[in-house]
Amino acid sequence: MQRGEIWHTLARRHPRHDGSIGNALIAINGVHMDNRPRRRSSGGRSAKLAQRQRSSVEFAAAIDRKIPYYELLDEAGLELLEHNADTLLEEIGVDFKQFPLAQELFRAAGADIDGERIRFPRGLCRSIIRSSAPAEFTQCARNPKRSVIIGGRRTVLVPAYGSPFVRDLNRGRRYATIEDFRNFVKLTYMSPGLHHSGGTVCEPVDLPVNKRHFDMVYSHIKYSDKPFMGSVTHPERAQDTVDMAKLVFGDDFVEQNTVITSLINANSPLTYDATMLGAATVYARHNQATVISPFILAGAMSPVTVAGTITQILAEALAGMAYIQLVRPGAPVVFGTFAAALSMQSGAPTFGTPEPSLVLYTAAALARRLGVPFRSGGGLCASKVPDAQAAYESANTMQTAALAGVNFMLHIAGWLEGGLVMGYEKFIMDVDQANMLAVLLQGMDLSENGQANDAFREVGPGSHYLGAAHTQANFETAFYRSTVADNNSFEQWESEGSLDTAARANKMWKTMLDEYEMPELDPSIDEALLNYMQRRKAEFADRDY
Amino acid sequence: MQRGEIWHTLARRHPRHDGSIGNALIAINGVHMDNRPRRRSSGGRSAKLAQRQRSSVEFAAAIDRKIPYYELLDEAGLELLEHNADTLLEEIGVDFKQFPLAQELFRAAGADIDGERIRFPRGLCRSIIRSSAPAEFTQCARNPKRSVIIGGRRTVLVPAYGSPFVRDLNRGRRYATIEDFRNFVKLTYMSPGLHHSGGTVCEPVDLPVNKRHFDMVYSHIKYSDKPFMGSVTHPERAQDTVDMAKLVFGDDFVEQNTVITSLINANSPLTYDATMLGAATVYARHNQATVISPFILAGAMSPVTVAGTITQILAEALAGMAYIQLVRPGAPVVFGTFAAALSMQSGAPTFGTPEPSLVLYTAAALARRLGVPFRSGGGLCASKVPDAQAAYESANTMQTAALAGVNFMLHIAGWLEGGLVMGYEKFIMDVDQANMLAVLLQGMDLSENGQANDAFREVGPGSHYLGAAHTQANFETAFYRSTVADNNSFEQWESEGSLDTAARANKMWKTMLDEYEMPELDPSIDEALLNYMQRRKAEFADRDY
Repeated sequence: MQRGEIWHTLARRHPRHDGSIGNALIAINGVHMDNRPRRRSSGGRSAKLAQRQRSSVEFAAAIDRKIPYYELLDEAGLELLEHNADTLLEEIGVDFKQFPLAQELFRAAGADIDGERIRFPRGLCRSIIRSSAPAEFTQCARNPKRSVIIGGRRTVLVPAYGSPFVRDLNRGRRYATIEDFRNFVKLTYMSPGLHHSGGTVCEPVDLPVNKRHFDMVYSHIKYSDKPFMGSVTHPERAQDTVDMAKLVFGDDFVEQNTVITSLINANSPLTYDATMLGAATVYARHNQATVISPFILAGAMSPVTVAGTITQILAEALAGMAYIQLVRPGAPVVFGTFAAALSMQSGAPTFGTPEPSLVLYTAAALARRLGVPFRSGGGLCASKVPDAQAAYESANTMQTAALAGVNFMLHIAGWLEGGLVMGYEKFIMDVDQANMLAVLLQGMDLSENGQANDAFREVGPGSHYLGAAHTQANFETAFYRSTVADNNSFEQWESEGSLDTAARANKMWKTMLDEYEMPELDPSIDEALLNYMQRRKAEFADRDY
Repeated sequence: MQRGEIWHTLARRHPRHDGSIGNALIAINGVHMDNRPRRRSSGGRSAKLAQRQRSSVEFAAAIDRKIPYYELLDEAGLELLEHNADTLLEEIGVDFKQFPLAQELFRAAGADIDGERIRFPRGLCRSIIRSSAPAEFTQCARNPKRSVIIGGRRTVLVPAYGSPFVRDLNRGRRYATIEDFRNFVKLTYMSPGLHHSGGTVCEPVDLPVNKRHFDMVYSHIKYSDKPFMGSVTHPERAQDTVDMAKLVFGDDFVEQNTVITSLINANSPLTYDATMLGAATVYARHNQATVISPFILAGAMSPVTVAGTITQILAEALAGMAYIQLVRPGAPVVFGTFAAALSMQSGAPTFGTPEPSLVLYTAAALARRLGVPFRSGGGLCASKVPDAQAAYESANTMQTAALAGVNFMLHIAGWLEGGLVMGYEKFIMDVDQANMLAVLLQGMDLSENGQANDAFREVGPGSHYLGAAHTQANFETAFYRSTVADNNSFEQWESEGSLDTAARANKMWKTMLDEYEMPELDPSIDEALLNYMQRRKAEFADRDY
């Protein structure tokens, strides 16, 4: 039989193992290590699947980065973009639509008010933000162990947000329901690599638009104990989110701490609308965090170049974050970026391509210079199904986001079809990648044990390390262990049904939902939440906008 | 109908286009730009496919990097690893098996010879390499426009190497033949994003082992005009490669220039065998380039830690490259790295995981400090099929390789199943990703046009950029345009057959092979090559080793 370079080399090196490192490992585990606990529990298919979901990674409440940022531009390049953004704010300005409070606050701060158009003297927004916005903040979870610090060298991974559809291999693409919503909250809760429960993990389209926020917020609280995001589709819904949080954390605690982070999009180019401003204002007044995110399809909503797009993003983010600081100095804000490149041939949004990566690297550096936390993606893709396109595109953005230094990485898991679809299998695959980011961001262990000089002395040329004392001391935690990848031989993979990644992921999410166990919630809090929802839902009629 | 956040935002912004940027683009192209040549040629399915293969990227003979390297470790970290590698070389040493010439040359250079074990005074290998190895070199192609510079800030992308099997959607997994080999040479020739024809793009298993190198080298020369790699499985086969190159380039030209780059693997840990040394010696004597590549499954062939693995890679590469410089000072050498992490649970090699990325970033930095070109992967994956696993893993390594600063990026396209399989569809997908790397490495355009300040003045808040003069001046070349991704709406994708990426790629490689046109080759050279092969093949019997 012919074997590839890799196997050929192994066979040459370790003839007594017939080229099979697997056999050598079995020998080690069997002969030398019989007294160690078996990693693989016996049992049926389900137990094997459950086993696969565990990983060798130890997860913390958030990733504390130990590797450097990737700095794409030098100081002069970043200053040029900052200068251009200031020019944009000064000469062209930003529209704050139908929102007199913004005019009032910015007028008092020294901006030039021209109806809804607000123009900003150079440096004004930056100076407002720098004087009061926190460089990092803690978002408290109802389980204190799950509270996360957002900002600094930390990375918080958050599932995808906002899709009206879901997809799985069995039922295909369909409108999302509150059951799907609960499922994704549960799956996120069970994924130690995800640090945050997210917000609108999918749109529960079976509930009326003006009331579904109650069930979303309740589901995050009831089915998870990780931090969560609030409603932004109406100021009243933001207030409901705050009020429900107060039932969980207490009134004073909420006013003095951040327990909700919410996503506020600019209407690019250079516009904020009353809905988003209204919701943002509610959150800021209550000291809750907002992610101010220019939402850009470059080429349509921003210029068709990378530098132009970044300039506009910075200008919009500066204006939005400054507004929040005027509402309540010190309220946590996050500099958010969502930038996809428009296909200028078809008009479709594209993901995982090089230009948005260049935007992301640069925006992260600009946020650091400003001194605020930074949000970006995420496992973004345009693919309709969890296939190779979906994975290439997602990985490209994830790698970029990790090296760039994203603090709040929204859309890390589940995203398909430009955000229209939340995918069950895609979620499982993305979580595996998310787990890998935690390892990557830990960087290299340069301790004595990491340097492994003793292993060299023990093994020497022409042997192998499988039985070495250093290997035996480290092998249980060495090297990332994928939850969903199949690394077995072709023959074994074939004998197990020739499943592709999506088919394996399909089994995994079902097993996880079967095995889900709800975190404890004080019954009096649960009752208070249910009473609140019942009362509020009765106060007005259902509406689909 | 419910729409996702992304579409919702568009619809709010551009009500006159019903939220469809596509409609807006059609309006622009139809109304304002009627005098422009149509990008999309009319014609049937084949013409559409051919169109898709073209890209907005302009390709050069190699990528000339304009973005910074990602430096994972600081100076102190790199010095520690260099110190440890020197300790390894000094205390433990490297076996040069059954190869007296190595003992002879290294003894004269001041090394400690203990039978086949050679130990090196601290700094000896480094000083030998630094005194004569070129920092970069040109590998000439028979078409001078395709000659590549390897080293410095350049990136040369090279297809996968060494798999005995091929796979495509129609015929599944099967042994590779010389026809498959020719097909991959043709596909590589037709992919402007690939700069190099590679070497054993797959093993032509239908030909005898001891004669297939003739047909491989001939195919690279005949069906492509890009630079290629030579045979390394026996010193005589290396000599045949050199002799055939001389028929193409002329005797003197070959002795004075580099026209072949070949892959020399160490037998890790710390061993070089006579086959590889013999082939490397032939190439070095003729001034041809060798890629000295420790080939590591970390945990088996190196210690089970990242830092230990890098230390060993550096030691092995130093010894191998120093040997080449002793054979012929100034012969081009490339510091090669191939490192996969072994699953310590199953013994299977894994790819695209964080630890090999850490190895790759660091090895690239060490090669820069040494002052030699650097080789690494590539679209590596363990997946048996071109599915999501294959793509995640490949993208993770490609992104890492691009930021790390790989000069000779082997295995960029086609690799499946840990290198056992060359995939037709995977090849097409990987080439698309390779094209993106060229754009990423170009970095950001900070020219006046790139800054797009005029576009801001023209458009302003609340409008869109689709009709702006700046957009019209730039849209034809703006933003990477994928060859294989489907970015269309779900409805359109469904109406076109709901094809996944692999199914689309399947059509593309077939169309490409249909449309392949052979580059011109001087008939007298062709005849000389055929005569050489006929004569040499008749000189000894077929053998399968």
